[in-house]
Amino acid sequence: MAVYPHLKPFGAQGFRNTVTATKLLGIGANHAEILGALKKNLLNQGDHPTLAKVIQISPSKRMSFKSHMDAALIEAKSAAARGEVPVGAVVVSPSGDVMATAGNRTRELNDPTAHAEILAIRAACASLGQERLIGHDLYVTLEPCPMCAAAISNARIARLYYGAADPKSGGVAQGPRVFAHTQCHHVPEIYDGLSATASEELLRGFFAAKRDR
Amino acid sequence: MAVYPHLKPFGAQGFRNTVTATKLLGIGANHAEILGALKKNLLNQGDHPTLAKVIQISPSKRMSFKSHMDAALIEAKSAAARGEVPVGAVVVSPSGDVMATAGNRTRELNDPTAHAEILAIRAACASLGQERLIGHDLYVTLEPCPMCAAAISNARIARLYYGAADPKSGGVAQGPRVFAHTQCHHVPEIYDGLSATASEELLRGFFAAKRDR
Repeated sequence: MAVYPHLKPFGAQGFRNTVTATKLLGIGANHAEILGALKKNLLNQGDHPTLAKVIQISPSKRMSFKSHMDAALIEAKSAAARGEVPVGAVVVSPSGDVMATAGNRTRELNDPTAHAEILAIRAACASLGQERLIGHDLYVTLEPCPMCAAAISNARIARLYYGAADPKSGGVAQGPRVFAHTQCHHVPEIYDGLSATASEELLRGFFAAKRDR
Repeated sequence: MAVYPHLKPFGAQGFRNTVTATKLLGIGANHAEILGALKKNLLNQGDHPTLAKVIQISPSKRMSFKSHMDAALIEAKSAAARGEVPVGAVVVSPSGDVMATAGNRTRELNDPTAHAEILAIRAACASLGQERLIGHDLYVTLEPCPMCAAAISNARIARLYYGAADPKSGGVAQGPRVFAHTQCHHVPEIYDGLSATASEELLRGFFAAKRDR
């Protein structure tokens, strides 16, 4: 049993069961272990930074976060190559299968709603023949905008893992904070900061190249 | 020139150029006249209720609001007949042509994003071959949820006309108030309360029938 300081639930912002996953990823925990720890009350769900004990990590489960976020980053790179804002998303089933991957296609499809998250959710729902993705996880390289955050809630996504914060257009941890109101009927567990640097670098490179053109 | 009390800009909530259109509809004004009045500073855009003078109404332009909202209500009724939550939407071009009409189809399409507004915006964009609807208006029978409000912003809709308020799931005048944050890069003009009673009755009837089943 190890002790990990600085795990900060987002309670003050109205989120539930939310920890900064980067801190746990640093020690190789995956979501099953974090959830197990939450269920056993080994993580404090209060409103302030807290010391928290995390259950021992089974090595076989390590890297499950990381590999799905890597797949989302590959989608983001492909989007950039198409001239789209580089954001990628992956939907993963409760049993760990990748159900859909997508990158932004707003320009290609002439569709202002064709963000990576929306396309991945729609593709996963279509493939399952259902309008809800109960128990499913969504990995996305950038903090979702309010449109995508609300779509994630509508789809009943269980866990949202995202990379870089988006102070300019984000709708999860800033601005409208879509999940923090009573009008939001389903709040996923939220883990931020996964591969945030890689995601930021992709976005920065894309917009720098656009400015230079 | 007439004087109309009780025109309340939404300034305090962060909206711009927003008046409760019902008050103007009561005297038969259409959006061209309201906009003209705003441009000529005949309407006070301050943060508090104000007396406002509205330019004379050209009778030929009367009812343009009403007929588009009637088309949206027809879409809402069709949605109810399909077993979908009765909400309908219409996109109108700057020259007044109906570009797309849609009702909710989340169940039929197995798509949690298939709200009336999203379907109408996507259809209008597809028909125009562009990802923005600059200068276009959107009429919808119910206050948009945060997903649809953000999609309306992403699509650069110029004017949003909606019917019933939605305290349970709305994202415009309550909860996340999507248009009231700096993360929202385009804020439409917003007119609420159009045919609100007809829209509410449709929704109430739909959910009452569902409960009785």
